[in-house]
This record gives sequence, structure tokens and C-alpha cells, in this order.
Amino acid sequence: MSESERTRITDGMSEAELDARHAEKMKKKKAARDKILATKTVEKGLLIVHTGKGKGKSTAAFGLVFRALGNGMKVAIVQFVKGKWETGERKVLEKFPGEVTMTAMGDGFTWETQDRQRDIAAARAAWDRAKALIMDDEHDLVLLDELNIVLRYDYLAVAEVVEFLKAKPAMKHVVVTGRNAKDELIEIADLVTEMEMIKHPFRSGVKAQRGIEF
Amino acid sequence: MSESERTRITDGMSEAELDARHAEKMKKKKAARDKILATKTVEKGLLIVHTGKGKGKSTAAFGLVFRALGNGMKVAIVQFVKGKWETGERKVLEKFPGEVTMTAMGDGFTWETQDRQRDIAAARAAWDRAKALIMDDEHDLVLLDELNIVLRYDYLAVAEVVEFLKAKPAMKHVVVTGRNAKDELIEIADLVTEMEMIKHPFRSGVKAQRGIEF
Repeated sequence: MSESERTRITDGMSEAELDARHAEKMKKKKAARDKILATKTVEKGLLIVHTGKGKGKSTAAFGLVFRALGNGMKVAIVQFVKGKWETGERKVLEKFPGEVTMTAMGDGFTWETQDRQRDIAAARAAWDRAKALIMDDEHDLVLLDELNIVLRYDYLAVAEVVEFLKAKPAMKHVVVTGRNAKDELIEIADLVTEMEMIKHPFRSGVKAQRGIEF
Repeated sequence: MSESERTRITDGMSEAELDARHAEKMKKKKAARDKILATKTVEKGLLIVHTGKGKGKSTAAFGLVFRALGNGMKVAIVQFVKGKWETGERKVLEKFPGEVTMTAMGDGFTWETQDRQRDIAAARAAWDRAKALIMDDEHDLVLLDELNIVLRYDYLAVAEVVEFLKAKPAMKHVVVTGRNAKDELIEIADLVTEMEMIKHPFRSGVKAQRGIEF
């Protein structure tokens, strides 16, 4: 290091001093991290919830699906709201024939159908299918996309869903998405992330775009 | 509907009344939504930021990558922190030969290296590569995974990064991930989501698991 670099001061410290302090700090951080990791020994199927008003709930869930597929795991997906996940994800999923099972509830967004009884019947059918997929040994991970929406509209009773998920096979991963996750579901979940919207392009007149929004 | 079903009351309303109210509500919701959608006409490359302490920032970014690939778009990925996105995502990305360009900064997590000068040089090299990828016409979407970490440690000056991203090609989508996104970056972004950790399985001794965490 040249003399001029050595004397470039940040907060009164030389670059060399900054480097040394950084090395010390990172060494401590790594030691602390290693110590914590050593205590983490439990392996279990996780109940994961993505909720909140922001983007990325289902996108991150599909990210998990693709990661699992990349690891040779088998995946099942139940879509409780139709009209999402069209071309994009579908084309990637097609690259894994025999490793993904997809079920879509056939009724479009709730504000498209306006038919409450049909939505309730569809939610019930999708939930029955979800239960069968979670119980069978074939799949390592089951994604229940937008289940929270259906629970929020009381198309399914949260008590029934919680009772079933509490008793799911121990090693099965289940991912639930949708805004307004019920407290009862959060209570029994292992991992809950809330996606919060800080800024949205809609506000400046930008439309939903292929490859980004769908 | 049977008489007993008709008289099952919720909040003093019959099922039929609930259905009618629901249809009316959904019709209004749909009309409002359609009206809003009609005003969204701008198409542009988005600057998307995933930040916050919760899980799902990079997972959702990879979800966007896969969606884009499924739509026939080309994607470039620059990893500013190594040691992530190993087998899982890599195997899925391999299904798209010629459509994904991946660059990894070769130095592992910062708390693994403890070498500040090497990290700074690696960050600079990754940023130079990122700029080239964003400027070339080949890619529709460029993911700068964990760029926020590098900015937070001041390995790159945020002013330089912001100046470049403000002048990026108009139709190019750029996705930036990492906790502690700088205010200057949030300021110029189109879409910002904060992933907030509500619950984490680490807290109950569960270890990172293949197919879920990596």
C-alpha cells in the first residue's frame, strides 16, 4: 500500500487500521455465527408463511419451489386463486416433468367471479386436494399459494386448516402465501416473513409487465 | 340451497343475503380495479429492491429470474457475496443454457474472509461486470444479488452506484437484494419490498436445511 493510501483517513483511522479492525470484527462475527450454528441440530419439515401487502410472497415461494426442484426434491403446488402464475412459472416447471404436481382452483380471482358459493366450493375442493398432497409420501414440499386469501374470506375455517397443519407429516415442508395471514396460522408456523410494500410502480402509472408481474 | 342452509345466519344475514352482498362488493372491487388498470400504461424497465431482515429477498429475486426465463427473456446474475445459491438454483438455471449469465464474486461471505482489501477489490470487479451487463443489449433483466451488503460496508460508493442506475437503459429491469438498502437507492427505485422477519426456525434450534435454505 502506498504512503498516500496509508494516510487516507476515515474517522481518523488509516486504511491499515481500518483493515485490522475489520479483520478482528469479522473474526468475532464468524466465531459467534459458528457457535450459534453448532446449536442448530433439529431437522424438520417447516411450515413457512409469506404474508404482508408487498410484492414477492408468491414469487419467493416459487423461488423455494425451484430451489427444492434443483435439489432433487419433489413438489406439489395448489393454487387457491386462479389467474396467476401463467406462462412464466409454468414454462420453468415444465422442465421438471414428473417432479411437480400442479392443481389450480378453477375460478379466477374472487373479484372476477362474484359468485361466493362457487368460490366456497372451489376452496373446499382445493383444500381437500392440498390435504391429500400433504399426506402422501411422494412430495417433499407443498405450496399452498394464496391460501391466506381463502381463509380471510372465511371460505375455509382457519381452525380446520390449523388442526390439519399441526398434525402434518414431520418432514414435510409446507409453504402458505397470501396477505392477511391469520394469527392462528402464524402461531403454529416455523418461519413467517412479512413482505411490506415500501414503493410500488403502479403509483407512477407503470403497468404490470410480462416477465416481472406475470 | 336447502331451507336449513338458507337460515344459517352470519351476522344476522342469510347465506343468500351474504352471497348477494358479496357479489355486489366484488363487482365494485372489479370495477375499481379495472379503472385503475386502465390508467397504467407506462412500460419501462424497473429498478426493484428487496431489502429487510427477513427471509425471501434473494429467493424472490430468483423467482423473478425464473419467471423472466419462462417468458423467454434473457437474464444476467451478479452475486456480490459468494457461498449462496449453490446447487439448488444452479441446477434450475442450467436448464436454460445460453439464456443466463452468472458471475460470482469469488471471496465468500465477508465474515469468512476477514480481508477488507480483498473484499473491496472483489466488490469493484463485480460492479464493473454488473455495469457491463446492464449496458449490453443481450439481457432483459440483471440481478445484483446482495449488492446492498457491499454498499453497507462502503466497499462501493452509493453515489456512484445510484448515478449509474439512474442512467441505465430505459427498458432494462434491474433487481437489487440485501438487507439495509441505502436510502439513496430506495429513492430512485420503482418497486421496493421490505421482507420483515416475524418468526424464524433458528430460534427453536432448527438448522438450515437443503432445499429450503440452500
